[in-house]
Amino acid sequence: MSSLKEISSIKLFNGYQKRYSHYSFTNDWEMKFSIYLPPKALKGDQCPVMLWLTGRTLGEWGFTNKSGIQRFAAKEGIIIAAPEPTPRGIEVKGEDGELPYGSQFGYYVDSTVDPWSKHYQMYSYIVNEFYQLLTSTNFPVKSNLIGLSGHSMGGTAAIPIALRNPDKFVSVTSMSGDYNPIATEGGSKILSTYLGENKDNWENYDSTKVINSYTGPERTIFVDLGGSDPVLDDFSQAPLLKACRGTNISLDYRIRHGYHHAYEFIQTFIEDHLLYHKKIFSTLI
Amino acid sequence: MSSLKEISSIKLFNGYQKRYSHYSFTNDWEMKFSIYLPPKALKGDQCPVMLWLTGRTLGEWGFTNKSGIQRFAAKEGIIIAAPEPTPRGIEVKGEDGELPYGSQFGYYVDSTVDPWSKHYQMYSYIVNEFYQLLTSTNFPVKSNLIGLSGHSMGGTAAIPIALRNPDKFVSVTSMSGDYNPIATEGGSKILSTYLGENKDNWENYDSTKVINSYTGPERTIFVDLGGSDPVLDDFSQAPLLKACRGTNISLDYRIRHGYHHAYEFIQTFIEDHLLYHKKIFSTLI
Repeated sequence: MSSLKEISSIKLFNGYQKRYSHYSFTNDWEMKFSIYLPPKALKGDQCPVMLWLTGRTLGEWGFTNKSGIQRFAAKEGIIIAAPEPTPRGIEVKGEDGELPYGSQFGYYVDSTVDPWSKHYQMYSYIVNEFYQLLTSTNFPVKSNLIGLSGHSMGGTAAIPIALRNPDKFVSVTSMSGDYNPIATEGGSKILSTYLGENKDNWENYDSTKVINSYTGPERTIFVDLGGSDPVLDDFSQAPLLKACRGTNISLDYRIRHGYHHAYEFIQTFIEDHLLYHKKIFSTLI
Repeated sequence: MSSLKEISSIKLFNGYQKRYSHYSFTNDWEMKFSIYLPPKALKGDQCPVMLWLTGRTLGEWGFTNKSGIQRFAAKEGIIIAAPEPTPRGIEVKGEDGELPYGSQFGYYVDSTVDPWSKHYQMYSYIVNEFYQLLTSTNFPVKSNLIGLSGHSMGGTAAIPIALRNPDKFVSVTSMSGDYNPIATEGGSKILSTYLGENKDNWENYDSTKVINSYTGPERTIFVDLGGSDPVLDDFSQAPLLKACRGTNISLDYRIRHGYHHAYEFIQTFIEDHLLYHKKIFSTLI
């Protein structure tokens, strides 16, 4: 475990919003993350964690800065951890538009193809290195109560990551994701960019496929979508319903009319996601 | 308005579960209905109503008898009204199995074809005659707070009926319905039985079509499905998601793993439906 370097620490709702960087051996790159420690954590009490996977456009700081989640996290005593969505600042051929989806996308996969594979190992980073960083002695984390959420490509990744690792993530919610990317035009382009043409491997990052092969304990997952979201089409959504039928996974799926894809949607509904985790945590204490 | 004949009146959770019959001029038949009056209504206070459309198998008494809803209705001060799903006891050629779907189905449509059209006018019965019966002086009903719910063919009907009459029904929830019956095999057989081959008319009873042409005020609808329900397939469900996108209708769609189609599902989750109506009623008082 490399040491953490504190970038900033700012008081917020009687807790502290902190920002760190550390060298990630998984991505072979210096990575940043944000973490909000609620008042309960400052007293040294172990707290549950909501781990947030952000979308492409903003770094880890964007969610922290704009979502307004700390108001609720302070009240509920839940730590909010938000890693950087990709190793930022790498100059990769193609990142300026030669590829349809390039640098700063990443999709939280372990890339298997040049030029991405050297630094884009985000699946393993989240599941192993960042998880280890969170649950080691750095922070007062209740390691059996960690939930995963995300938005856009982070929402796409949250369900597969959580369900492939049910021993690590006890709850999962998702905003505005693509739940069947192996079948959508956009998803396929992204997956082929980072994973090449081995479609068996693509399935590891597709919610419907991961649900179909899921063998872990019962889960209830929460999916939230803006009714006027122009990014996502029906094909990225409807297969999720079918996938859940006949499994031991229950689904809470919402459409909220008039909302779009970006931060206004997150700000409006982020409390519901925190409380969804809290409700599941409360059954496990 | 024909007079009501009381069949029974039984004390339950400090309220009264009553059962009536009356001559329906719409259906040209004697019809029964159940109504639960919570303690609040017995004091003479006007109460909101949850109007329940039952599925095919049981009469109006089945929901009343088996759902357990009165415990919650008593507490929340909400009247539960459950009309008979079809005019029962009519001998119609075909009801014993000559047609794929015959007597006692009905689907809450206004039939346009022999031999059904004489007595099977359930859409108009619910929207006009039964609504009028409820909101006249028979019961202490707060007529601006009536919500519609149903299960199976009642769940199929609840959304189109509520959204075609938003001035009468301010909220709607549905359990285990077919939301795109014009496109499913079972739905098409039923609609052709009662409506013939005029598919334009079928669309009046199809949630996706009614949502597409909806011009009323904003609505949030709640749909609930058992994950192991063997009656409903993906084709009856997924189009609902697409239909809601870009409209002023928000959707809460749930799948609860392991549950089947019948009363065990209703009993487990009926409180959630009552509270969904209550939450919407509370914004309108």
